[in-house]
Order: sequence, then C-alpha cells, then structure tokens
Amino acid sequence: MTKGTDTREKIIEQAATLFNTKGYSASSINDVMEATGLKKGGIYNHFESKDDLACKAFDYAVKIAGEKLLSRVEAGDNAKGRLFAVIDHFQSLPDNPALPGGCPLMNTAIESDDAYPLMQKKVQKAFDRFQQLVEKLAAEAIEQKQIDTDLKPEEISILMISTLEGALMLSKVQNTSVPLKIAGEHLRKLLNKGG
Amino acid sequence: MTKGTDTREKIIEQAATLFNTKGYSASSINDVMEATGLKKGGIYNHFESKDDLACKAFDYAVKIAGEKLLSRVEAGDNAKGRLFAVIDHFQSLPDNPALPGGCPLMNTAIESDDAYPLMQKKVQKAFDRFQQLVEKLAAEAIEQKQIDTDLKPEEISILMISTLEGALMLSKVQNTSVPLKIAGEHLRKLLNKGG
Repeated sequence: MTKGTDTREKIIEQAATLFNTKGYSASSINDVMEATGLKKGGIYNHFESKDDLACKAFDYAVKIAGEKLLSRVEAGDNAKGRLFAVIDHFQSLPDNPALPGGCPLMNTAIESDDAYPLMQKKVQKAFDRFQQLVEKLAAEAIEQKQIDTDLKPEEISILMISTLEGALMLSKVQNTSVPLKIAGEHLRKLLNKGG
Repeated sequence: MTKGTDTREKIIEQAATLFNTKGYSASSINDVMEATGLKKGGIYNHFESKDDLACKAFDYAVKIAGEKLLSRVEAGDNAKGRLFAVIDHFQSLPDNPALPGGCPLMNTAIESDDAYPLMQKKVQKAFDRFQQLVEKLAAEAIEQKQIDTDLKPEEISILMISTLEGALMLSKVQNTSVPLKIAGEHLRKLLNKGG
C-alpha cells in the first residue's frame, strides 16, 4: 500500500515536469513511460487514463508553484512586503523555477484555451485563486496605507498577474531577464508610496 | 503550377489555424489531413516534413497577425494614435482574432521555449520585430511630445507587449474582457499626456 502510494506520487511528479515542459497533448504515453521508467501497465495501474494523470499532474504542479510563492509571501515584513513578494517571486522564476518549464498556470492556459476544455476549467480555478490571493494582499497594503494608488485591489491583482506572466513569457523566449526586470520596476514604482 | 501553388497555400492556411489552436506537437499528420481534406501524400508532396509545414504555417500566422496590427497602426491620426493602436488591437483580439486560437507569437513562445528549439528561434525573431515596431512608435510619440513619460522607448515596448500578452492570456482563459480592459486603461493612463 505504501509502496503503491509512493509509486503513484512519483509518477505524478515526473509527469508534471514532462507536461510542464512539453505540454499535455504533445506528451504521449510513451513519453510518460520514458520519464517514469515504468511500463504502460505500471502507469495505468494507478490512473484511469492519460487525462486522469494530466489532471493529477496539473494539481501537483499548481501546489508546488503555490507553495513556492506563498513561502516568499509569508516571509514579507509587512503588507507591502507581502504584495511585492509576488513580484520578487516572478523575477526569480527563470533561474529558479518551481518546476521545469515555467509557470504551469500560463503554460496550461495557453495550451487548453482552445483545445482542452477539461483542463481549461482547472486552470480557470487556479487563476481565480491566484487573483484572489494577490487581491487580498493588495487590499491589506492599501488598508494599512503602505501603498498609494487609485487602483482597486482587483485591478492591482489583474494588472500584476498580466504584466508578470507576459514578462515571464517574453524573458523565457528571449533568454534574458530584461522584460521581468522592467515589469518588476514598473509595478513597484506604480504601487510605491514615496517613503 | 498555379494549381499546385494554390494547394500549397491552402494547406499552409489551414495548418496555421490548426497549429494555433491545438499546438504544433499535439497536431498529428492525421489532424493536418483532416483539416485540409488531403491524403498524406498530398501534403508531403508540398512539404519536406511536418516541421517544414509548421515553419511555413508559423510564418503565415505571423504575417496575417502583423498585417492586422499594421493596418490599425497606419490608420492612427498621429504618433500617439499609432502607438495606442497597439492597445486597441489587443483589446479587439478576443472578439476578432487575426486567426483562431489567439496570438500566434505567444502560443508558439509558450509551446517552444522548453521543447522546440527550431520554432523558438523563429518566435524570438518575430518578437524582436514586434518589439522594434512598438519601440519605434513610442520613440516617435515621445519625439513629437504627444506622450509624457520617463520611460525609454525600449521600456515602453517591453512593458506594453508584456502587459497586453499577459492580459490576453488571462482574458482568453477566463472568458472575460476585464483583464484586457484594465491593462489597456492602465497603459493609456501611463502614457497619456494630459490633454
């Protein structure tokens, strides 16, 4: 039982990296076999289908990415520090990703939005949670008068996530930290209460 | 000869839509056969390999997307109007995409950055050209004192492209125009010279 659970967890972890770099649809069951070192039966012993494994792997990837973000947020000195930790987190991702392949939310969003309804539903919920977290951090920073802005918390959240995800995409494809640096500086300046 | 060229162009067009919605690696040659109504031989008669077709289809998608953007830019009243046309263009994309599936540059960037070096090279060049276009529009608007900003043209370009691509991704996955609306308003306000 314990060994079975271990094997299952290990398949999920290895599949999460495979799917986050190569994509769900582009990864064949042969790719999963190669990544895990298991035979087909050894994989389907633990999962009903490739879609079932893909869903579990996405949940795992989101959990890992979320834990990495939250540990940085929670280390913030105050409300503003916790909000700005989201920016720091994105700037650290090219050199130190939560899992190989970049942001699993953006990767899955781009892959699923026209072609994979099952996964789109899951990524919608994951982005909802991410937006709500940043909105809450922004609301706290405003309430404690640590940032000075006319923007509402919801607008700050959407703007930060859009800008940082777009800059991460551009930094990754161009192999340079410049877009994330410019995006981070801009967002800090936008929200920075002078002093 | 003309008929052969027509068939070739038609395959490229139909494959471009297929690849932009489903992805390159996830689209099998059977998917291309289904999209084009041709047999395998009829496709490989025109292209050396699936990669060859993928490259031609990407070039076509970038050309179509670029023409749509440029026609809007060129209709701008002045330098500021031409720069802001980039924002209007992105805001129009969910309802009126250049081709189905969203921005071919972002889609291809996300798919290729960890797994498809041939295509990553092509998307790097396409983003370079896009960045240079927006940088040129920003430089003209600054020179003609139509926008008021401390940002350099290169920074404006990177910030606009990151924010708009990220907001397009979020708008598409969440089925709402809100992220693109907030991103557009923010960028206009950031660059708007009062009056």
